[in-house]
Amino acid sequence: MIKASLIEDDNERRAADLAVDYDSLGERLDRRGIDIDKVKDRVAAYGVAIPSWGVGTGGTRFARFPGRGEPANVFDKLDDCGVIHRLTGATPNVSLHIPWDKADPAELRAKAEEHGLGFDAMNSNTFQDSPGQALSYKFGSLSHADPAVRRQAVEHNLECIEIGRAIGSTALTVWVGDGSNFPGQVDFTRQFDRYLEAMSAVYAGLPDDWRLFTEHKMYEPAFYSTVVQDWGTNLMIAQHLGERAFCLVDLGHHAPNVNIEMIVARLIHAKKLGGFHFNDSKYGDDDLDTAAIDPYRLFLVFNELVAAEGKPGFDPAHMLDQSHNVTDPIESLMVSAMEVQRAYAQALLVDRAALEGAQEANDALMATAELKRAFRTDVEPILAKARSDKGAAIDPVAAFRASGYRDRVAAERPEASGAGGGIV
Amino acid sequence: MIKASLIEDDNERRAADLAVDYDSLGERLDRRGIDIDKVKDRVAAYGVAIPSWGVGTGGTRFARFPGRGEPANVFDKLDDCGVIHRLTGATPNVSLHIPWDKADPAELRAKAEEHGLGFDAMNSNTFQDSPGQALSYKFGSLSHADPAVRRQAVEHNLECIEIGRAIGSTALTVWVGDGSNFPGQVDFTRQFDRYLEAMSAVYAGLPDDWRLFTEHKMYEPAFYSTVVQDWGTNLMIAQHLGERAFCLVDLGHHAPNVNIEMIVARLIHAKKLGGFHFNDSKYGDDDLDTAAIDPYRLFLVFNELVAAEGKPGFDPAHMLDQSHNVTDPIESLMVSAMEVQRAYAQALLVDRAALEGAQEANDALMATAELKRAFRTDVEPILAKARSDKGAAIDPVAAFRASGYRDRVAAERPEASGAGGGIV
Amino acid sequence: MIKASLIEDDNERRAADLAVDYDSLGERLDRRGIDIDKVKDRVAAYGVAIPSWGVGTGGTRFARFPGRGEPANVFDKLDDCGVIHRLTGATPNVSLHIPWDKADPAELRAKAEEHGLGFDAMNSNTFQDSPGQALSYKFGSLSHADPAVRRQAVEHNLECIEIGRAIGSTALTVWVGDGSNFPGQVDFTRQFDRYLEAMSAVYAGLPDDWRLFTEHKMYEPAFYSTVVQDWGTNLMIAQHLGERAFCLVDLGHHAPNVNIEMIVARLIHAKKLGGFHFNDSKYGDDDLDTAAIDPYRLFLVFNELVAAEGKPGFDPAHMLDQSHNVTDPIESLMVSAMEVQRAYAQALLVDRAALEGAQEANDALMATAELKRAFRTDVEPILAKARSDKGAAIDPVAAFRASGYRDRVAAERPEASGAGGGIV
Amino acid sequence: MIKASLIEDDNERRAADLAVDYDSLGERLDRRGIDIDKVKDRVAAYGVAIPSWGVGTGGTRFARFPGRGEPANVFDKLDDCGVIHRLTGATPNVSLHIPWDKADPAELRAKAEEHGLGFDAMNSNTFQDSPGQALSYKFGSLSHADPAVRRQAVEHNLECIEIGRAIGSTALTVWVGDGSNFPGQVDFTRQFDRYLEAMSAVYAGLPDDWRLFTEHKMYEPAFYSTVVQDWGTNLMIAQHLGERAFCLVDLGHHAPNVNIEMIVARLIHAKKLGGFHFNDSKYGDDDLDTAAIDPYRLFLVFNELVAAEGKPGFDPAHMLDQSHNVTDPIESLMVSAMEVQRAYAQALLVDRAALEGAQEANDALMATAELKRAFRTDVEPILAKARSDKGAAIDPVAAFRASGYRDRVAAERPEASGAGGGIV
Repeated sequence: MIKASLIEDDNERRAADLAVDYDSLGERLDRRGIDIDKVKDRVAAYGVAIPSWGVGTGGTRFARFPGRGEPANVFDKLDDCGVIHRLTGATPNVSLHIPWDKADPAELRAKAEEHGLGFDAMNSNTFQDSPGQALSYKFGSLSHADPAVRRQAVEHNLECIEIGRAIGSTALTVWVGDGSNFPGQVDFTRQFDRYLEAMSAVYAGLPDDWRLFTEHKMYEPAFYSTVVQDWGTNLMIAQHLGERAFCLVDLGHHAPNVNIEMIVARLIHAKKLGGFHFNDSKYGDDDLDTAAIDPYRLFLVFNELVAAEGKPGFDPAHMLDQSHNVTDPIESLMVSAMEVQRAYAQALLVDRAALEGAQEANDALMATAELKRAFRTDVEPILAKARSDKGAAIDPVAAFRASGYRDRVAAERPEASGAGGGIV
Repeated sequence: MIKASLIEDDNERRAADLAVDYDSLGERLDRRGIDIDKVKDRVAAYGVAIPSWGVGTGGTRFARFPGRGEPANVFDKLDDCGVIHRLTGATPNVSLHIPWDKADPAELRAKAEEHGLGFDAMNSNTFQDSPGQALSYKFGSLSHADPAVRRQAVEHNLECIEIGRAIGSTALTVWVGDGSNFPGQVDFTRQFDRYLEAMSAVYAGLPDDWRLFTEHKMYEPAFYSTVVQDWGTNLMIAQHLGERAFCLVDLGHHAPNVNIEMIVARLIHAKKLGGFHFNDSKYGDDDLDTAAIDPYRLFLVFNELVAAEGKPGFDPAHMLDQSHNVTDPIESLMVSAMEVQRAYAQALLVDRAALEGAQEANDALMATAELKRAFRTDVEPILAKARSDKGAAIDPVAAFRASGYRDRVAAERPEASGAGGGIV
Repeated sequence: MIKASLIEDDNERRAADLAVDYDSLGERLDRRGIDIDKVKDRVAAYGVAIPSWGVGTGGTRFARFPGRGEPANVFDKLDDCGVIHRLTGATPNVSLHIPWDKADPAELRAKAEEHGLGFDAMNSNTFQDSPGQALSYKFGSLSHADPAVRRQAVEHNLECIEIGRAIGSTALTVWVGDGSNFPGQVDFTRQFDRYLEAMSAVYAGLPDDWRLFTEHKMYEPAFYSTVVQDWGTNLMIAQHLGERAFCLVDLGHHAPNVNIEMIVARLIHAKKLGGFHFNDSKYGDDDLDTAAIDPYRLFLVFNELVAAEGKPGFDPAHMLDQSHNVTDPIESLMVSAMEVQRAYAQALLVDRAALEGAQEANDALMATAELKRAFRTDVEPILAKARSDKGAAIDPVAAFRASGYRDRVAAERPEASGAGGGIV
Repeated sequence: MIKASLIEDDNERRAADLAVDYDSLGERLDRRGIDIDKVKDRVAAYGVAIPSWGVGTGGTRFARFPGRGEPANVFDKLDDCGVIHRLTGATPNVSLHIPWDKADPAELRAKAEEHGLGFDAMNSNTFQDSPGQALSYKFGSLSHADPAVRRQAVEHNLECIEIGRAIGSTALTVWVGDGSNFPGQVDFTRQFDRYLEAMSAVYAGLPDDWRLFTEHKMYEPAFYSTVVQDWGTNLMIAQHLGERAFCLVDLGHHAPNVNIEMIVARLIHAKKLGGFHFNDSKYGDDDLDTAAIDPYRLFLVFNELVAAEGKPGFDPAHMLDQSHNVTDPIESLMVSAMEVQRAYAQALLVDRAALEGAQEANDALMATAELKRAFRTDVEPILAKARSDKGAAIDPVAAFRASGYRDRVAAERPEASGAGGGIV
């Protein structure tokens, strides 16, 4: 845990500058007809969920280089998530992954409450084999040729729902790596039919107040075809399953050059946007820190989300999903949560009437200039003020580094092995 | 026209070798349990349509380098299409483009009958302005912000239907370049709603025995967003419009690396595959000759089509859509039509029971080997025999070059200007 | 021309706000140890060249939709370029394209002087056929199989040098579309050898104080291979030709996902970076307005350039190269010139000692945060002050719209035809 | 080991059909002026090396699903490689990876001789940490900011050379994953300088009769930049190091859409083509079986290689480098070795005089048709005859499955753990 006094002391040192910057930005926004406090309040109310696995160090098939003080179990992970939320005030929920995070529900709830955290969507895992599992997922899970494997995968998902109910989650996210590595290895249609049938069984077990999110991905771990390869297939799935089934968009799961913000708009149009896994990428599913590569793209996604606010049934889930190979995961997640807030804040600054006016007049230059004006605005004072107001840190990374937390857990927790990776 | 005697003489010189090769291939296929004559008959019955604009020389925004003897009007185009069909026996239909091919329907029918040709899908054009047109499509057509422009575009499509009815077509293909070049230039959702509304008006005018094909394309001429950018949006359109609305797949209209054969399978699954624009590409919508770059990919598409044969309602339209910048368009279209037949013939050779057996057993190596075995088979003797049997040329390009047709039309037709291109 | 009084009046209305914003930003930068006036002075001294063809409306192979008041000749173009420089103070040079801009050198110089403009690199054109040209470039130019065509292309380039000498240019930019549309159409090696031989002849004609820039491009107008397809080949060319030969980087000429800023760093390392064609793209060589799609990428390029400032021989040329299909070209070029300045200004804000410190300590999070801090800074007041100080417009687009210039030239200049495009 | 009698019996059953097919193909080739026996002899003399790690089951960062009877050490690997060579006669050499394959050189030589195998290029490993290693490669190896880490990496490479000398290898292949995951994490230029300095130290330790191969890769495991990211940088390296330094091309290490065969031609032009890692890919570095996705592309690469045969100094190394996640690695490697031979055989069939004639005449259609004619030829009888003549199997996969080898080693070797993967 991070001591409140540490945060308070650090904030105190930064308070004067922040006040100046906030006021100055407030004046500039006022000229544009924007009330900075209202923007700040909306940012303050915004939260993005943390994936439990994100607080560990990631890796590639080539290697995993462990970090110091990595969490050894779900309770360590919740402690780390607590730090992130304590310092940013922006990550009120944690998303668990089963079986990695299996534990006594009461203990999970207790630990989460200790940190003021709740539980976001549950994540099932049928893309790898787990100890004690009867049948292998080497050749697929929910779409496997063998009905026994499909049944096992369905039951695992139903178990995830059960665990989720016990801890207060209300959504299940299903991502599978099922696909093929060779032309002809699978029949696209039979495989998809099997997937739909299995997912229907999962959907049948969904509590009435739950939502089901399916996630598409172009490739990896399958390298020729993937059963839920793009948003078109994902839409077909959500349409097939029913009204509580929605599509989840991971920003790194698309073909090169694809216009992701447009996919977001289409899913909103179809009333099937379930939510996001935020991250950034340059090549494939790189799982880099959100906005690390293309911050304008993230802004354009939020421009769609802000434009859709208030539409009936529009309520996408927001979660980070990143792999931290060379940074401290706590730091990366804090920065990423703030980047998501930043894009949200910038999107709130768009003058939507002016934008629509330029659009209707085919004034492309002015329309895009309106977006740029919002994006260009340095909203850091808004974010910092939102944090400071709720007792979080004005500069979370500085406070974290000052806290000695990483040293502390490195001393307490067992050293993580470098195992994993090296598969080539 | 090509004289029958020319073809006969050329065929006669090649007949003996063909007989040997056909018999030898027949023996090899017989060992695999395949009756070569049955394959040959199916290939002989297969046809792919020619786009009227394909017989002219294409170009890029940088330049158009005219060819010799380019068709000056739709009747010249039909003459060229007649040559292609005469020599290959594989292209019984022509697809017209309005307003480029506007002419008296009776004369069109007469000219087509002269060559034994029919008319395939009609193509509307709202991606460029035409002489006498009231309103510009600079900022869109069916999705334009101005309802008057949308109305004009709808009426143009309805006129295409009228012309098509008069000449015996039963389908309308709609491709629009509507989109945007800047983030913010258009509102994705309002633009899409306008498109859907306009297309509904077109669909309302569709005769009962017609089909409507909408075509998606990732980009170009719009470079930030395109209103029908991918098959997901295309599917939403076809679902919205009704049961006679289908999705058209152009092989060059997808994002890099995308698995096109899988998209074909998904559209078949959704009962919304309308047909194809065949061509090949390495980078973007390159419109190169079919199978020029990746012949295995074309085979994999046909592998899906052959697997789906006989499914209720499955009846995709097949058309070439290429831009011939450095070759004689007649030669390229002949070769491309034969490449389509080749992929079809190879897909017919797949032992589907063996394939399914390997798939169900997760024997990826044997499954893909089965596809490769079919693809590797040199089916040229089958194609040549199918042509020869119906009086077409065993070697269409050789016969065409021997015929002097290009010299003849170069002498008769006005020289085409290099105009166009040079836009940079 | 734009009246000085118009600019002065408009600036006067904006002066007070600018002063406040400039001071406020100055304070914030001062906290970071940065003297805002020094940054402003460097921005004020920075210029980017305008391509003469950029002031006309562009198009695609599908269509060109003319704009109002398009320039009819090179003198009109220079007038438009004069407006851009008058309002932004950021575009002191114009780059001509031969034969499009052929005219009496004395008249060209006079017109340029009238606007306070100079001449940047000359551009040759062997990617299209021009009236009166003896041999066609349909199958290539500098790398054509026929030596007579190569000779013609070499002579054209030598003529461009002659024209350039007469107007005070000191560089030649060579871009060719030579390549192929089919595997096997050309022999890669023989074609490259022919290109090198022809370029050696051009290089031999280069005045001692000139530089030669060769430009690579992945594809288009050739769709299977291009003779100068990437920076690797471009480097081989520059190495082959000699010390006054350099590589030109157009931001839109690379493969998807490629790290362009790294290519810039490599060319700097090889002492062969000649300069830039700035624009932006999402898919191919989209030639969109600079920073319209990915402003952070442009910043990262400038981050490399600022880091390399002062290296011996480092002196890259900066030019815009865009195609304006849906905007007023004058407006797009003004905005783009300012976007280039913006990226430059932001790159100047990077604390290079802090960056290097983080890099040496493998503190990836802090290193990237340093870049982000610079990028996030809204430097608009710096740019506006730099303009205002030199009598250019605080808000060039607003001043341009208020000036009535476009209406005026639309009345004076002949209406441009929509010819071009429609090639498909 | 596979019993000779098993192969002989299986071959006997297939001999008659093969004789018929070989004769029939011989006749068809004879008509094209090609002596089938000469082609067969060249194919028979061709070999491709096996990477020792290829006989184990691969995986992804998500999971590794072990296969049955996986090799437990380098001697098991050599046994498996022996089987591959015994059945295909096409893989006379094995490429070792240090430290994975560290063992007593005498024992390695003895085991290799037992199978009639030699040793190809040595592969160093500085992309992961190994037990007992002093310093971590988490932030790079040969280009690490810390000179001590660079020194360690250099010494490891020198050790690889020592081991290689002891077993008769004459080449070192260096691939590093060094790069960055964030803009700014590394300085491109300083990192490259450090890499060059370290590689110079490795090169200095290269025996006179050795070659050094450096391998470029666009991305992975680094996701923003990679120090040897493309062939341009690789060429700079080979030029910097000296005349025994060459570039290695892995088919899966390029940007989307890149024309790889052209890169091969350029490296040949620069006299710096060192060799290949053959595999296939659809998305990234998928490491799929060679020719599994795009067999025509492989043919086009071999078309360049055959065209370059006989050029002074032209002697590229050929190796497979694949990851077998869902197939039996022995089967995949056998099939892949045969696919490489197939592409070679097809490329030998190209009528180079006819091709050059069409190229010089700008007859694109005939030029590409000549390549297609060669590619379309089913050369399986040539490959099978080449195998059969040397006592290898006509159908290696069938013989392998009949042999019971996999069952045998599964019984003898310890079960491999599923460890690795699951990193996400």
